[in-house]
Amino acid sequence: MKLLRFGEPGKERPGILDDGGAIRDLSGIVSDIDAGTLPDLDRLRGLDVSALPLVPGTPRIGPCIARVGNFIAVGLNYADHAREAGMAIPEEPILFNKAPSSLSGPDDPIRIPRGSDKLDWEVEIAIVIGQPLHEVSAEEAVRGIAGYCICHDVSERTWQQERGGQWTKGKSAPGFGPLGPWLVTPDEIADVQSLALSLDVNGQRMQTGTTETMIFPIAHLVTYIASFMRLEPGDVITTGTPPGVGMGMTPPRFLKAGDVVELAIEGLGHQRQEIVAS
Amino acid sequence: MKLLRFGEPGKERPGILDDGGAIRDLSGIVSDIDAGTLPDLDRLRGLDVSALPLVPGTPRIGPCIARVGNFIAVGLNYADHAREAGMAIPEEPILFNKAPSSLSGPDDPIRIPRGSDKLDWEVEIAIVIGQPLHEVSAEEAVRGIAGYCICHDVSERTWQQERGGQWTKGKSAPGFGPLGPWLVTPDEIADVQSLALSLDVNGQRMQTGTTETMIFPIAHLVTYIASFMRLEPGDVITTGTPPGVGMGMTPPRFLKAGDVVELAIEGLGHQRQEIVAS
Repeated sequence: MKLLRFGEPGKERPGILDDGGAIRDLSGIVSDIDAGTLPDLDRLRGLDVSALPLVPGTPRIGPCIARVGNFIAVGLNYADHAREAGMAIPEEPILFNKAPSSLSGPDDPIRIPRGSDKLDWEVEIAIVIGQPLHEVSAEEAVRGIAGYCICHDVSERTWQQERGGQWTKGKSAPGFGPLGPWLVTPDEIADVQSLALSLDVNGQRMQTGTTETMIFPIAHLVTYIASFMRLEPGDVITTGTPPGVGMGMTPPRFLKAGDVVELAIEGLGHQRQEIVAS
Repeated sequence: MKLLRFGEPGKERPGILDDGGAIRDLSGIVSDIDAGTLPDLDRLRGLDVSALPLVPGTPRIGPCIARVGNFIAVGLNYADHAREAGMAIPEEPILFNKAPSSLSGPDDPIRIPRGSDKLDWEVEIAIVIGQPLHEVSAEEAVRGIAGYCICHDVSERTWQQERGGQWTKGKSAPGFGPLGPWLVTPDEIADVQSLALSLDVNGQRMQTGTTETMIFPIAHLVTYIASFMRLEPGDVITTGTPPGVGMGMTPPRFLKAGDVVELAIEGLGHQRQEIVAS
């Protein structure tokens, strides 16, 4: 299933893609795609999607999960990206947090926050948690995954690296977390560790990668994180970016107003954001 | 006003302390103490508290805020504590995140998580956000504060300091965030930068401090954090601990099953937790 949320910000309704790729209105079946519905997505499997109301036009798409509780990010999870960032390959996953208020729709504009001077891009595959998970085996962790989606881990490098200690400062501004377009359930993905990722800026390919080259694969990440904290339905884990970010270029290149960023992950769809001034 | 939540975990109801210190049931007036009600606490000011139903007995007290979105913590915000931790006094506030799933009631037992070997204590004053705040002045930041409460920033030092990079790993286990007993509104506090804090372990005083010696005071912290992210009603910021934590002792001392920790902050009440085995 490909689940999504459509409509104006804060007023999104749940939807599902039909076999032809059109959006069907799910709001008669579930109230939203959130902690309340994620633990039991199986109830949607018997649904005759073609009988649901067709959503007219091309509505705005919102973040594919509502009311995210914990928005966790993994740093330096592709060996090539660690090298371009000038960092050692980590011995254990690096974890930091993005503010849940950074979440936005996959095609919403990204506003340059006040004082930002090094706005950078990062295409990532995100995990959406469907069950409470704490101190679990890898098998239990995998069973607790509700699905996957694209996450743009928008980053302010000065704030991340030059403002003292932890990374959350440079990862959390409003609009720094485009999520979606769809939550794709695991049964639709043959091998989550073999998906191509890409990111273009103004039509030029900047990032090319595959989830094959992750240092810590997805089953390990979820098990590892759940050894430190209880993951809850609706939590999102974005899993790190492959090489090709702006700060790794010579000279470094950062985003400016008017730039257009396009992201794609095999089977998970496409995002497109315009950068706008603050 | 002193607002609280009472009842079994996950089934708490909102309450308010009356002039005699007894709990009155607020559930006929507001649904909970959360993002929905925090922006408009002023509506409770005209209330005849003595006319509300008296809550019988001594119910369990839950965390004083429900459905916390972003649980932010400030590191090394007392100069003496930075020294005992062997860290430089920071030039800017250090920010990290505690998982919202770490929240617990002020007197709930603290379970030693599996694999923990350096469980430590930290008494802190926490800020509860009442209004959306992003790119605001210090005056706007202060107006957006709904109130204050005690937070025990329970910490696993091996996980915080020896497991790679960011601190969130050692701050997020279930039970690592006792919050309350009460949310105390700002009008009840003459000077939030002049409150005594203390923490005892098994009746022995370990931490003694005052909010006078914060490196970055509360108005600055909220303004600073809101320059990086949008704070939302119900977000909690715990503001760092004074000296006297276990890892700073010679030799270091950590919590073990059977220990009892008691925390107090002037005007904000008292917490008491027993440490229990995993």
